[in-house]
Parts: sequence; structure tokens; C-alpha cells
Amino acid sequence: MKLSGVMPPITTPFQDGKLASDKLKSNFQKWDKTGLSGYLVLGSNGEAVYLNEKERIKTVEISRESIPTSKIMLVGTGMESTEETIRFTNQAAKMGADGALVGTPSYFKGSMKPQILYDHFIAVAESSQIGILIYNVPQFTGINLEPGWVAKLSEHSNIIGIKDSSGNIGQLSEVIYLSQKGFAVFVGSAPVFFPALCVGAAGGILAVANLLPQECVRIQNLFEEKKFDEARLSQGRLTPLANAVTTKHGIGGLKMAMDLAGYFGGDPRAPLKRPGPEVEEELKKLLQSLNQDNT
Amino acid sequence: MKLSGVMPPITTPFQDGKLASDKLKSNFQKWDKTGLSGYLVLGSNGEAVYLNEKERIKTVEISRESIPTSKIMLVGTGMESTEETIRFTNQAAKMGADGALVGTPSYFKGSMKPQILYDHFIAVAESSQIGILIYNVPQFTGINLEPGWVAKLSEHSNIIGIKDSSGNIGQLSEVIYLSQKGFAVFVGSAPVFFPALCVGAAGGILAVANLLPQECVRIQNLFEEKKFDEARLSQGRLTPLANAVTTKHGIGGLKMAMDLAGYFGGDPRAPLKRPGPEVEEELKKLLQSLNQDNT
Amino acid sequence: MKLSGVMPPITTPFQDGKLASDKLKSNFQKWDKTGLSGYLVLGSNGEAVYLNEKERIKTVEISRESIPTSKIMLVGTGMESTEETIRFTNQAAKMGADGALVGTPSYFKGSMKPQILYDHFIAVAESSQIGILIYNVPQFTGINLEPGWVAKLSEHSNIIGIKDSSGNIGQLSEVIYLSQKGFAVFVGSAPVFFPALCVGAAGGILAVANLLPQECVRIQNLFEEKKFDEARLSQGRLTPLANAVTTKHGIGGLKMAMDLAGYFGGDPRAPLKRPGPEVEEELKKLLQSLNQDNT
Amino acid sequence: MKLSGVMPPITTPFQDGKLASDKLKSNFQKWDKTGLSGYLVLGSNGEAVYLNEKERIKTVEISRESIPTSKIMLVGTGMESTEETIRFTNQAAKMGADGALVGTPSYFKGSMKPQILYDHFIAVAESSQIGILIYNVPQFTGINLEPGWVAKLSEHSNIIGIKDSSGNIGQLSEVIYLSQKGFAVFVGSAPVFFPALCVGAAGGILAVANLLPQECVRIQNLFEEKKFDEARLSQGRLTPLANAVTTKHGIGGLKMAMDLAGYFGGDPRAPLKRPGPEVEEELKKLLQSLNQDNT
Repeated sequence: MKLSGVMPPITTPFQDGKLASDKLKSNFQKWDKTGLSGYLVLGSNGEAVYLNEKERIKTVEISRESIPTSKIMLVGTGMESTEETIRFTNQAAKMGADGALVGTPSYFKGSMKPQILYDHFIAVAESSQIGILIYNVPQFTGINLEPGWVAKLSEHSNIIGIKDSSGNIGQLSEVIYLSQKGFAVFVGSAPVFFPALCVGAAGGILAVANLLPQECVRIQNLFEEKKFDEARLSQGRLTPLANAVTTKHGIGGLKMAMDLAGYFGGDPRAPLKRPGPEVEEELKKLLQSLNQDNT
Repeated sequence: MKLSGVMPPITTPFQDGKLASDKLKSNFQKWDKTGLSGYLVLGSNGEAVYLNEKERIKTVEISRESIPTSKIMLVGTGMESTEETIRFTNQAAKMGADGALVGTPSYFKGSMKPQILYDHFIAVAESSQIGILIYNVPQFTGINLEPGWVAKLSEHSNIIGIKDSSGNIGQLSEVIYLSQKGFAVFVGSAPVFFPALCVGAAGGILAVANLLPQECVRIQNLFEEKKFDEARLSQGRLTPLANAVTTKHGIGGLKMAMDLAGYFGGDPRAPLKRPGPEVEEELKKLLQSLNQDNT
Repeated sequence: MKLSGVMPPITTPFQDGKLASDKLKSNFQKWDKTGLSGYLVLGSNGEAVYLNEKERIKTVEISRESIPTSKIMLVGTGMESTEETIRFTNQAAKMGADGALVGTPSYFKGSMKPQILYDHFIAVAESSQIGILIYNVPQFTGINLEPGWVAKLSEHSNIIGIKDSSGNIGQLSEVIYLSQKGFAVFVGSAPVFFPALCVGAAGGILAVANLLPQECVRIQNLFEEKKFDEARLSQGRLTPLANAVTTKHGIGGLKMAMDLAGYFGGDPRAPLKRPGPEVEEELKKLLQSLNQDNT
Repeated sequence: MKLSGVMPPITTPFQDGKLASDKLKSNFQKWDKTGLSGYLVLGSNGEAVYLNEKERIKTVEISRESIPTSKIMLVGTGMESTEETIRFTNQAAKMGADGALVGTPSYFKGSMKPQILYDHFIAVAESSQIGILIYNVPQFTGINLEPGWVAKLSEHSNIIGIKDSSGNIGQLSEVIYLSQKGFAVFVGSAPVFFPALCVGAAGGILAVANLLPQECVRIQNLFEEKKFDEARLSQGRLTPLANAVTTKHGIGGLKMAMDLAGYFGGDPRAPLKRPGPEVEEELKKLLQSLNQDNT
């Protein structure tokens, strides 16, 4: 199974505050018909931090049943402690995950020196029954893993890739240049998907792919066909919506946009909120203008 | 019970990676003989983020058994989701906590606008069976709750205080000036304990009080006796060690210093580590110089 | 001449875009009747970065003529290059400055390592005919000089003090504890004037003292008479206006407030602007409420 | 004259602390034989903030004499005040500059709201006799001009381009997508030169082009010949040195590397310093390894 292409970090649907299994299944039915190469379950956009253990397990179970074996299933398994991370990673492995995405622990920011993080990832990789991908997301964690350290980690046979959501293309570029051949570098920020591909990224794990999988896949296809001007234009058209459903309006905005695009989004869990009608109006317009551009 | 004075955010002792109940009890025996007004259980320094639910409950149980009713027992109960925070706060209440310390949710930093945080704290306060204190610690969370919003929250009868660990005395000063009378403002940063008292803080929840409770209590006593020059001098002497066991060497350093000072510190959980021998040497010197100053 | 007390970093008055010498003189006539201990000429609030060499010299000349010898005249002389700083410092000395305030060079932030800054200040101190004070203002420069380095610099006989505008009382406290006896530490942030005095500051160089010199002096007087509760209350009342005329509305707001308080403020230079009528309304209300509190 | 291609922000050579005109001329003789499209005189790397007015004028004069009319001469003319910026911009125009690079004023960071900056640039553009380019360099100024505001400014006929040194390719990408056709977007950070070209940049104003003009020009040539893999590889090889002569070792490192590469670098002005022998060793190795790669 080649680690590449476009994957959405899937949202977790709730109804009346409870995990809505059927809604998740119906989303998968739609996603599976697109060119997505796989899925990230229990990522940030999956509100993993708002799920208890039972709900996390249920979500992985449903996902495993819904995802065809021809597509990749990554599961977010990073916890603050090394031991818990190992435990949950192997639980995900047992449940059929193809790989685990492990975030940098970050609560004690001041103590998370590079060597501490290095040792953490090596310890997890040593004990994990599946390959792990590093998850670098400084805007949430306040911690950035430098390219030199990523390159070192890429030498471990069980550390098979990274999702870098910093949006920093210079950094991504260095990670790719310095890391071992075959190390799968995914960009986690849709507004820089096209330039990430230019510098050699294997693909993107993109929030906006929850609602516009084809638009994301199209950028990668155009890139691979060397139609750079078209790819760049597609990127330019996608960016305003990509910004709106992440940085600007958060997961509430992402779920609202999914509802508008024909998927089930629903409400996020408190303290997050569904945005108001002005944001709905804004998202509608962004979707319409994107559709017009595409025709 | 008056919310004031010096409280340590107690560390959680581990032996061979397991919660060491007897060590916690023996620490309490020593602490209880000092002038500490109470304790914060399951705070940041208690490595709460590294404990599973069972361990958190066990820690609260032992603490409740060990803490005399004449002293305050606060429990850290903040989780990322509002619902889980309410659930665990009421569990702590049932187990005998006098108050709950509730941190600002912070994972989705960009979405944690003031109104979202306000609604979160009000929701918790409405459903909590015990009074809650806000925990503001921007260096860990990347989020700062402004004095105006704290003042608004102080109007709720079940929001009884705040622990502000920003180290920002201007902010603390405004919080005290703007908040309701009787709202208990604790400073969470030992190097500014004396100036915090000057601007009207009720007390301090101070990591260094884990190992030097009397030195912290002494500063507050001197302040209340209006011996300001002596209080300032005591503060000046305490500051280097206070910096060393928090900002500089983290919880590993705090636990090591506890061992040197006659308490049980032990090792933190991975990915945190016990510092090496040079740090031990540094901490020894700081402790010695503090003892010499005091004689 | 003892370096202590309250000094305003005086604003530079313009009329029709030109330096308005008579307005500056009339401001001095009013200020000189108050309890101010001295003045800082060509500070940040003096829009020094918007003045050409001729205007800077003219401003110092008028100030020297207007300031009685019983009061301190400090002049801001820091430039980006070491050589220019020395040149202008000695020019200020020749024109009668009692001391020079020298900011940290900051344009090439990444290169301004502590040792580089240390060498810069030592070079200036060695060549200056008057004593120099360090000016630490991280919110403008992006650079913070740590207490340990300030303490080292305080050993040089020609480095006689510091203005620290970081607003960080923990840092101020350490600077005072670690520096040589007699080293004059001024706080440069009015909202923490009272706590700064508590930790041992010699005085304050405060923007709001441009329009409310007596209110600032009163806080220090109350502090010295050990009337701490009153001092704290006075501080609490002053803070909202102090925030408004610096952080919130900048020099345009400061000058507008001076106009409202009976001094000549006038317009700042472009790109700065005089704020609109809503800010004027806000400032009026803050001034009124302060006057009511004082009666 | 088409605004595109590779330009170095030329360093200003000093000997015994004085401007070394002959060294500047001899550097130009070498540069002029390369594929550089032009030059930026008095940029950040030209230590413009360390030059007095006379020296700035002299530097422009020598440059004008040395630069063939077939190549572009941009001059950095941004000052803190709007009036001074206009004055110096027109002086540069009179001396033969083809365009002026105008940085965002930044001393009063808190007051530099987008509208203030917009008005500043419009005022300069209205009064300037030559076209101006915006200079956005948040790492020095602490201020970032958002793509939406750049796009608005691009509508003014006398605002002809931007140098964006943020290193943020997402931002550069949006600037290009949103701005008027023909608006010349230069990237100011060599490690992202190749991805900048991919998203549509017209060229690069790159510090490392002071010593390795051909290596920079080569990347753009390969890009234009659609040899993307080779371009990406050339970029990967250039990046370590590009980082070393800017972020890591500053202008002192840049000048040292120029000396090693056959140009005149010399010493920077104090407080900047020439780095020590270990840095020289590091730079030599980086240059050697680059030369080996190229053969």
C-alpha cells in the first residue's frame, strides 16, 4: 500500500451529543466513491480530544468496516504520555489500522526539547505493531519539530512518514530533502497543497477534503499530469474555502460546510459551537463561487 | 473556609511507573505540619495529563484521607470538553473536594474566543456541586483570559476564584480591581508571589511550595505583618530556586528538588525525564545557599 | 542628583507638521509646577524616530532651557549603530543632559544576541561623557535583556540605571535583586507602577505622567508613606486611562488626552494619526471618572 | 523593463569603518557578468539602518554608475515617517533608481493597523516619481501585511510590486492570486525560491545571490525550462548555505561567505560582528559541498 494521495482527517458526527454511527457510515459511502486514497480517523478535526475511550474505539470500528482494504486507514493515536500512546497505538493496530499518526506531546511545552520528543517517537516506534507517522502541528501544540530531527527519525524503519500542518513550505522542503527515501511526507494545510506537491510531498491530509474530496484530488492529478498552470489555478480557487473551514471558522465551520455540500456535518461538541447564519451565508457563497469556477 | 494562603500543586509520586500511594501519604504527613493552607490535587505539576481515570480517582481518594478538614482541598478537573469537565468536577465534589480548579480548554486555540470560554465556565459553574476556580496558564495553553472577562465570570456565585499563572502582575492587579469582592485571586508563579500579595492576591498556588512550604508561607506572613523589606528579601532569595524547579527544569527538576529537600519526588512519567547530575548539583547549591541565607 | 521619582517621556508637539517650540515651552511651564522629578526627552513617546537630526537638537535645546537644574533631564540617544549612538550621546551631553537613555538596537533581531548587546552598551558607556541608562522595551523592539545581563552591565560605573518597559514585574524584581546597589531601576509601564515600587523600583518613566503628573506622583508618595491600600486604589483608578493612552490608542491617543487635560498635545506625525471622536469620548469619560474618584 | 528574475540585496562594503567605494565597484564588475536581472541597493542586507544620509547617497551614486541600464536598480527608501519616506524616495528617483522598495513602518507596532499602513503606502505612491514596491519582512518588523491589503494596494498604478520575505508560501500564493495582473511579486527568502516560482512569483531578491548569483539564476532557468526535478534538487542543495548566511549567521556571516566566494564582504558595522573561525569553517564546508554537488 503506497502512502500517498489525498486523505481527509474525517470529522466525527454527533447527534443529540452522541456519536452518530449511521451518519459516519453514510459519509463513508459518499467518500468511497471519490478518488481519495484513504482516511485519517481520530485526527484533530475528528475532535479526538472530546471523545472518551469507548467512543474512540467505536469510531475506529465503524471506520474499519466502512473503508475498503484498497484504501488507507490511518488512526490518530498520540497521547501526552509515552505509555498511553503505545497502548492506544497497538489497540488501533489490532483493530486494523494501516498506520498510526502520533502527535508531539505538548502539554509541558517548556520541557519538550527535541531530544525528549525524539526519544518519545523512538519508544513508540519500537513498541508499535504498525508503522507510525509523526504529526507536527505547531499552531495547536506550540511545538515545532525541526527538519533535522525529522530526518533522524526517518531512519527508523517503523517511522514511515509525517503529516506537517505548519503550513511552512520551506520546512516541508527541507524535511523531504533530508529524510530517507520513501519517507512519506504529507502536508496538512490545504492552502499550500499545490506548492507542497511541487517540493515533493506524497500527498495531503486536508480538512477541506471532508467536503470537497474531488477538488483536492484534482489538484494532485493536474500536478501529476504536469498541468501546473491549471493546478495553480485550482489551488487559488480552493484556498478561500480551505481557510474558512479551518483557521477562520474552526471545526464548527467545517461541519457546517459539510452539511452544505451534501455530507453529514452536524454540531461539534462544546465548548465548540456551530457558527451563526452569517457564517452559513459566507460558506454558501464560497461554495457557489467554487462551483461556478469549476464549470 | 477562607480561600487564601499558600498551597502546593502537589506532585504525583510514581514508583516503577506506578502511582505510589504510600509516598503520597508520607509527603502529606510532612506537609500537614507546615503552615500551608491547603493543597491543589491533579494540577499541572501533578502530571494530571499523564494519569488515567483510575489513577486520578485514586490520587483524590488518598489526598482526601490525608488532608485534615481544616485545610483546603482543591482538585484540578478541567478537561477539553464541557461535558467531561462537568462530569469529573462532580465526581471530585462527591469525593470531598472543597473546590475545583478548571483550566481553559485550549486544544483548538484559534476557536477559543473569549465568549466561548465564558460560556464554558458558566456551563460548568451552573452544573457543579462545588465552587470552581478558573485556571489561567497561558504558557501551557497559549490562551489568556483577559481581566474584563474574568471580572464578568466573578459575578457568578459558583465561580469563586482564579489561579493566574501568567506571571503578569499588571493583569493580576486588574483582575483584583475589577472582580467581585471576595473573589479569591491566587497567583500561580512563585517569582512574583510577593508583588502579587502587594496588589491584593489572596495567596499563592506555588510549585516550589512542594519542597519549601515554610519559605513560601514566611513571605506571606512577613507581608501580613507589614515587614515589606524582609518579605522582598525573602522573595529575592527564593526566586532562583523557584525558577529552577518550574520554567528551567520542569517537573523532573521539581521532583528531584523534592528528593533533595526530604520529600519523596521520584521520577516523572515519560516523555518527561529526571534531569542529569549537573542539574542535581545546581539544585543542591541553590538549596544550600537558600539555607545559609535563612540562618 | 538622585535618580528617582516620576518622569514623563515627553511628547513632541507639532503644529502644521512642524516642531512647535512654544507649545513645548508652555507644557514645561505646567509640568514644572508639579512634583515630577525630571523628564525624558526624545523617548519613544517623543516620536524620536520621526524627527530628523535638526529637530532632535532643537527639542533638546528647548528642553534644557525649560527644565530647572533641580530636575533631571534624560535624553534618548540610542541609535541602531554603536558609533552613531556614541556620537549622539556625547552631543546630548554637551547640550546639558544629565543622563542618556540608550535603547537596545533591534533591527537585526536574530543577530542581537546577549553578548552583542552587552558589548554595545559597554562600548557606549566607555565613550560617553554622561551616565547611561539602558532602555528595555521588548514590545517595540522584539528584544528582551535578561536580568542576569542587566546585572553584569550594572557593574560598569557609567551604566547608572535602566528603564524597563516590559511590564514584567518578576523581571524587574530580579533586576533589582541582582544589580549593583545604587543602580536606578525605573519602570516604564504605568499599570504596574505601584507593584514596581513594592519590589524596589526607584521610580517610573510613565507616558500618562504627560497629562496626569500629580496622580502618578501621588502613588509614589502614598507608597513612601506606607499607605499601601490607598496607593493600590490610586493605581487601580489610574490603570484604565494609562492603558488607553499607550497600548490601546498609542501616541495619537496620548496627545489627544493631553489636549483634554489642559496640556498641548496636537497631532502625531504620519503614519500615526489622531484618533476619531469615539476615542475622544472614551478618553473624556476616563478622565472624568478619574476626577470624580479623586474628589 | 520587466520586473523579474534574481536580484541580490547588495551588501555595503566597509574598510576601517568607512564606506569602501572601490570595493563596491569591483563587486559590481563581477555581478554584472552574471545572469542577475538587477540589484536592490540599501536593503536590510545593505545595513541601511547603519548608514547616515551622506553614505546612503554615496552608495546610490556608485551603484548607479556601476549598474548597466539593461539591469534594474531598486533602492530601499522606507523610513519610519511618511514624509521622510517620500523625501528620500524622490531623492532616489532623481538619482536614477528604477523603483523604490518601501518597508512597512514598524517602530510603533501596536499602532500600525492595516488601514494606517495602507494610507502610508498610498501617500508615498501618490507623491513618488518612481514606482514603488512594498517590502514585507515580519521577522525584522514584527508586522505582516495580509494578502487582502496587498491586493488592494496593487490597484494603485504606482505600486508595482512587493518583496515578501516572510517565507510564507501560502501567503505569497494568495498575494499572487488576489493582486492585479502585472503586479511583480518577489520572494525575499532563498530557501523557498523554487516553491515561490511554482506559485507564480516573478523572481527573487535573495541575500545569497550576493555570493552565488549563478546558483540562484540557475534555479529560475531550470524552472522556466520546466525541469522541475532538477530545479528542486538545486534548491535543496542551496538551502543550507542560504540559511547560514541569513537566519543563522546574519550579515556578518553573509559578508564572510562573500569573502570566501571571491567577492569583497568585509566586516559589518557594530554592534554587528564578523563571526569567528568556527563559522568560517562551517561556511567553507557548505561552499565546498555545493561546488562538489554542482560538478
